[in-house]
Formats: sequence, C-alpha cells, structure tokens
Amino acid sequence: MRKAAHIVSMDTRDIRFPTSRELDGSDAMNPDPDYSASYVILRADDGTEGHGFAFTIGRGNDVQTAAIRALASHVIGKDADDVGALYREMTHDSQLRWLGPEKGVMHMAISAVVNALWDLRAKREGKPLWLLLGELSPEELVELVDFRYLSDALTPEEALTILRTAEPGRRQRIDHLKAHGYPAYTTSPGWLGYDDDKLRRLCQEALDDGFTQIKLKVGADLDDDRRRMRIAREVCGPGFPIAIDANQRWDVGSAIEWVRALAEFDPWWVEEPTSPDDVLGHAAIARGIAPVKVATGEHVQNRVVFKQLLQAGGLSYLQLDAARVGGVNENIAILLLAAKFGVPVCPHAGGVGLCELVQHLAMFDFVAVSGSMEGRVIEYVDHLHEHFTDPVVISKGNYTAPVAPGFGAAIRPESIAEFTFPDGPAWRSA
Amino acid sequence: MRKAAHIVSMDTRDIRFPTSRELDGSDAMNPDPDYSASYVILRADDGTEGHGFAFTIGRGNDVQTAAIRALASHVIGKDADDVGALYREMTHDSQLRWLGPEKGVMHMAISAVVNALWDLRAKREGKPLWLLLGELSPEELVELVDFRYLSDALTPEEALTILRTAEPGRRQRIDHLKAHGYPAYTTSPGWLGYDDDKLRRLCQEALDDGFTQIKLKVGADLDDDRRRMRIAREVCGPGFPIAIDANQRWDVGSAIEWVRALAEFDPWWVEEPTSPDDVLGHAAIARGIAPVKVATGEHVQNRVVFKQLLQAGGLSYLQLDAARVGGVNENIAILLLAAKFGVPVCPHAGGVGLCELVQHLAMFDFVAVSGSMEGRVIEYVDHLHEHFTDPVVISKGNYTAPVAPGFGAAIRPESIAEFTFPDGPAWRSA
Repeated sequence: MRKAAHIVSMDTRDIRFPTSRELDGSDAMNPDPDYSASYVILRADDGTEGHGFAFTIGRGNDVQTAAIRALASHVIGKDADDVGALYREMTHDSQLRWLGPEKGVMHMAISAVVNALWDLRAKREGKPLWLLLGELSPEELVELVDFRYLSDALTPEEALTILRTAEPGRRQRIDHLKAHGYPAYTTSPGWLGYDDDKLRRLCQEALDDGFTQIKLKVGADLDDDRRRMRIAREVCGPGFPIAIDANQRWDVGSAIEWVRALAEFDPWWVEEPTSPDDVLGHAAIARGIAPVKVATGEHVQNRVVFKQLLQAGGLSYLQLDAARVGGVNENIAILLLAAKFGVPVCPHAGGVGLCELVQHLAMFDFVAVSGSMEGRVIEYVDHLHEHFTDPVVISKGNYTAPVAPGFGAAIRPESIAEFTFPDGPAWRSA
Repeated sequence: MRKAAHIVSMDTRDIRFPTSRELDGSDAMNPDPDYSASYVILRADDGTEGHGFAFTIGRGNDVQTAAIRALASHVIGKDADDVGALYREMTHDSQLRWLGPEKGVMHMAISAVVNALWDLRAKREGKPLWLLLGELSPEELVELVDFRYLSDALTPEEALTILRTAEPGRRQRIDHLKAHGYPAYTTSPGWLGYDDDKLRRLCQEALDDGFTQIKLKVGADLDDDRRRMRIAREVCGPGFPIAIDANQRWDVGSAIEWVRALAEFDPWWVEEPTSPDDVLGHAAIARGIAPVKVATGEHVQNRVVFKQLLQAGGLSYLQLDAARVGGVNENIAILLLAAKFGVPVCPHAGGVGLCELVQHLAMFDFVAVSGSMEGRVIEYVDHLHEHFTDPVVISKGNYTAPVAPGFGAAIRPESIAEFTFPDGPAWRSA
C-alpha cells in the first residue's frame, strides 16, 4: 500500500487558442470559437501533480476559471486519493449548489477538479486512467457513483450486477485494447467553414486514414447541407456511416423536416437536433425521423438529464463529454445508465484535449461496464493535440490505448505560457 | 416620445447577508445559507440607473458577479430601451452560450442584467414595471420573447391570441390591483431550524396577518415533518392551505412514499419533490401523489424545462423565479406557456429581494396574460426587505401594487456598503 498524499495547492490558468482566425470548429451555432481551457493544476505533498480543465470556446473562460478557484477549499489539505468523497463534497456544497445545481459553469468547474484528482491518483498509481478504473472492483466502482435522483432508473444493486456481469472478460479486453486500440470516427472533414473542395479532399483523407465513420456539421442552410451530404456520400460510397450534427440549431418540427430532407443521403445519426435540455423534444424527433437515429450528450448537463433521455427513448447513441458533467465519477454513472438501457456510448471529443480524456472513459467502458465495442466509436478531431504532453495516438482509424500514467490532461508548459489569456504572446500580438 | 439614452457603465458588487447565523432560510438541502446578491448597476447617459441582481446563498457569489461582468460589452454603448434585442444578444453570444446554454451561473448573470435594463427603462418611463408591461401591446410583448425551442408547445401566433384575449379587461384589472393588491402566502413559519413553539406562534401570526396559505419546509426527517404538519394543521384548522416544500431532497420513489405519509394532514402542494431537472420524475411523482399537487420552478433553469414540465403534467403550480431564468423576457415566455396550458403561476420569492421583483411579474400576468388570480398566490417571506429602497408593502395578506417607477431591485446604499463581501463592516467583524 502506497503512502497517503495530501493536496497542498491549486493553480488555475485561463488558456485560449485563437482558433476563430481559421474557422476550424465552426458550426451552425458556434461560428467563431476560440477553443479554450480553464485549466487547473493540483499539487500533492508527495510532489505529484494532477491536471484538469473545463473546455470552453472563448469568452467566459475567465468566469469558468473563477468557478474552479471557488472549489479550492474543498480539496486543499485533503487526501489526494479520496476522489469519491471529494466529488460528493463539491457537488453537495450547501451554498455553491444554488448556482446549479449540477449544471453550467459551477458543474464544469467540479468536472475540472475531479478530473485533475483522477489524473493525480492515476499518476500516483503509475497507470493510465482507463486501466486504473478497469482494475477497480465492482464494489469500488459503485462507491464512486452518486445515485441521488437515479434510483427510479438505476439502483446501486443493479449497477453492481452490471459490473459483475462484465468482470470475467476484463483481462482479455485489456489485452485487446493494448493490441488493437479503440475505433474512432472523424469530424475533421465536416466543419461549415470549409469549401466543397476541402470537404471532398478531407473525406478522402478520412477514408485513406482508415476511419470507419465521418461526421458533417449541418443546420445553417438546407441547400448547402444537401450539396455537402451529396459530396460526402459520393466520396465515401453507399453504406459508409456519415453522421450529421446540427449543434442545437432546430426546434422539434424543423428538426424532423430538415432530417427528412437529408434522408436520401442516408445519415447515420443526427446529433444535437435541438436544445440539449429538451428530453421530450428529443423523443419526438427520434420518433419523427426513424429509422435515422438521434445522438446527443456533449451539452447534456448531468446524469439526471441523461437518465431521462434514456427513459424517454430520446437518443440511440449517448455522447458523453469528459469535462461538462461532474468528471469521471458522474461519467461512471452515465456509462452504467447506458449499459442498463442497452445504448452504446460514443463519446464527444474535439475541442481542447477532449480526445485525450474521453479515450480513457470509452476504454474503461469496454473493459468493465458494457464489455462491448459494438456500434461504438470515439469522436476524433485532428486539432490542437500538439499542445499536450501525452497526445492521443491514432493508428489506422483507431485510438491507441494510452500507456502514460494519468488522464492525459496535461498541456505542455510552453503552450500554457504561449496561450495564456490575455497576456501570453499569442494574444499580445493580436 | 422621450429622448434615447445609452448605457455608459456597469458596476457590480458582491453583497452577502450573514443569515446563516440565525438559521433563517434553513431547509432540507440548504442548511446554512448566507442570502446574497450579485448586484449590478447600469448607468445611462441621461443619468438614470438600472439595478438588478442574481440571488445566491453565499459561496460562489463572487463567481456569479464575475459572470455579470462578462456581459458588460454587450450592453455598454447600447440603446437603454432596447431590452428585447439586448436579451437576445446576450443569450446567443456565440462563445458564452457554451457555458450554459441558458442555465446556471451564466444564465443567472443574464437575468441580472436584463432585469437591470427593465428597471432602468421603467424608471425612464416613470412607471412601476408591472404597469409598464401591462400597457404594452400584445405585439410589443410577443416581440420580447425568444420562441426558440418552444414552437412545439407555443408559437408566436398562439402567444398573440392569448394576449389579445386578455386585452379587453386590462384597465379594470389594473384598477383592481391598485385597490386590492395581489394575494400572498407566507413561508415565514416553516423553516426547519425553528422549534415547535416558534412554528406554532408563527402559524398563528400568519393567520392573524390575513395570509390565506402557509408553507412548511419538509424532507429532513419524516417523524419531525409529521409532528410539524400536525401542529400547523391544529393552528390553521381543516381546509386551510398548507403547502410543503422538500427543496429537491427526494428521489422519485421516496418522494411518493414521503408525501403519502403526510397525506392525512392534507398538504396543499408539495414543492420541489426531486431534482429540478427531472421532468419525467416530476410527472411520475404527480401521478403517484394525486390528489396532492406538485409545484416547482425556483430552480428550473429555463423556458425549455418549463415547457416540458407542462407538456408532461409534471406540475400543477408553476413557481417562476425572477432572477434565475433570463430575466423579464424569458419570464414573459414562461407566463405565456403557463397560460397556454392553463396552469396557475405562483411565483417563488424570499431570498434577497425576490418578493420585490416577482410581485411585478404576477401583477403583469393578472393584467395582460392569464387575466386571473384564481388559484394564484405570491410567496412572501418577511426578511431583508429593510435593505431595499422600495420594499414590498404587505397589507392584510396581500401585496400592495407598487407605485414607485422601476422594478424594485434597488438595495439601499448604506446596506450595500455594510454587506459588501468581504470588506464591508458586517463581514470584517465576523
């Protein structure tokens, strides 16, 4: 048993990449994002560091960083390994919860700190997070989950049964991941800001790189969307999965009409057709566009809304986000809910470092929760990875299983210095 | 036509009242609140000021204030009367919306600024806000609403019909309000931190003061709740409306069990039985506890969740909050939704200055939207009003119609100085 360590400090940084200058990341609702991280570094008295962040798209990253700092008193002086208790304490702070509860800026702050705690713990154990989690017992995993508001859909006993059922094959699945990785799909071809030639070229590159699914942003103009879908379908060929993503652009009725107007191009799923808060709207859209499926999750605020999306049949693919809900702990709850309802999890990634994080969650799901890769892919965007200490490695359209200890959240010190807002060189020159 | 004015400055203040020292405001989820306001003052170039705030319960009020400051560039230099356009611009800021969208800290910040803009406009027009809104045309009112994500439940055309239907009786209802005010109920007797003698005494005072409904906090301990309900029922007599409020304490199953165990004391409604995000849970509880009704709203994040609560039959009383959703504009949408579904609005109040604000919204609802007071009461808590420039006036259990121009949000300068955190005298001495 290793020696206990205690958190001794929290540092935060407002890091912003000026991505809006290139129109990378442009979609129907987010035309000009500056991909950003509200970044947190926790230091323990054994010298270990844990890194985490909330992903934002520019303005407000300072507000997000202030929210992370508001959590400092909850972690400083505490046992660095006791992530379950610290997650609960932050989530149920009797005054801070008024600012949510469990949603928006304050909840994303909890996500950043919880993920930093997991990064730290994984480094102390010398394992990549997916493997650390994949080797915890079912009892230890259930202990990490906050079941409040879930018991009408998932009890601790049911969660334990799910985890015990998946236990026998864990070692083989770990070996499979080490040998083959986990399948990815790419959003790189599909940003709205790209012209047709660039779309065509990037679709072909996606095929050449071995990806088995791509995704296109839609929702700004129907004629454009039809033309772009036709191009993508021509390049990729019939039957190849081409997902579309509306980024919350539509009301319920217009979502159904728009997707039907694209149906001849055989979209694989439609992502975020409407408000992420609209459970009943998602269910109505799912009924209205069948057999096209609904996917959502990157803006779903917490496990309570995911629970309802599953109960109502509002999604067929669950796209968890690593840094919006309350970090690893709440994502374990969400993976368990998805397993209970038999819905595949295809994590949201892109942004800053989300690929680096979600690969661990998807691989843990495969090892210890769903036990399956069927119908599952992790989003991949080829963007900003060079700023990370342990960037994702994609090989033949697959995420390679991480081997470095930790959660992969650490941004390189040179990049932190360069892109700190507003005083870093990248911003001073602007 | 009066001269245009432009916003020239935004000041913010972190104001906190040390209410946790007295256990005023204690409930099953919020045992130790320090009632607080993230306060904003907008100044126009004609010398007018608009005041607004987000209500919080202590820690995190600094984060909330930072969020308000993040909106400064959206209002400074703009036409002070153009509240509809400014509300839309803030809500749809292409980068800030990532921090919600339309929920939590960032949305409460929008609420504070939108409400300050309305305060300013009402002062410029020399009218209390309820009267200003009650004299706008149906077309002007519809123009203030953002119908995005609502069209499956309420279209602009339907909203116009609702408003036009209520138009004929407006003048008589304005006169009625001026003569008689609007009925209130009181939560003052029911805080969990009070002993039985204080509960009994405050129930009797509520009756003596002419209130026609009271409310008790419940959810911490069932035996205590049964004893306290019995005392309240003894004092108030059979048939008198006694609402109960669980402040999100329960899961779906435990909510149904707990309320059934209190049914013999004939609760009028049960408020916030579970997570404010759980639309389907509220609907299941409503079915499980009938004929007891469900009320909720103070933590409902936006119009999209209210829409679903109405669609699913998850509430029978809609408790809008003045400072959580996107301010007056989104509350007009919520009043219209409630009218469409025939559900009475009984606003949430208490906290800091929420009574001062919501009276305007309920009176506007009576004048121009629902046209009715039937089944409707405004919450009242006798607390912290002395800090306001234009405090509410309660007479024989009724809110007296405000006459001072504005929205009633202004805190007295002496109180601002005394309770500014952490440097005001009230906090330096602590």
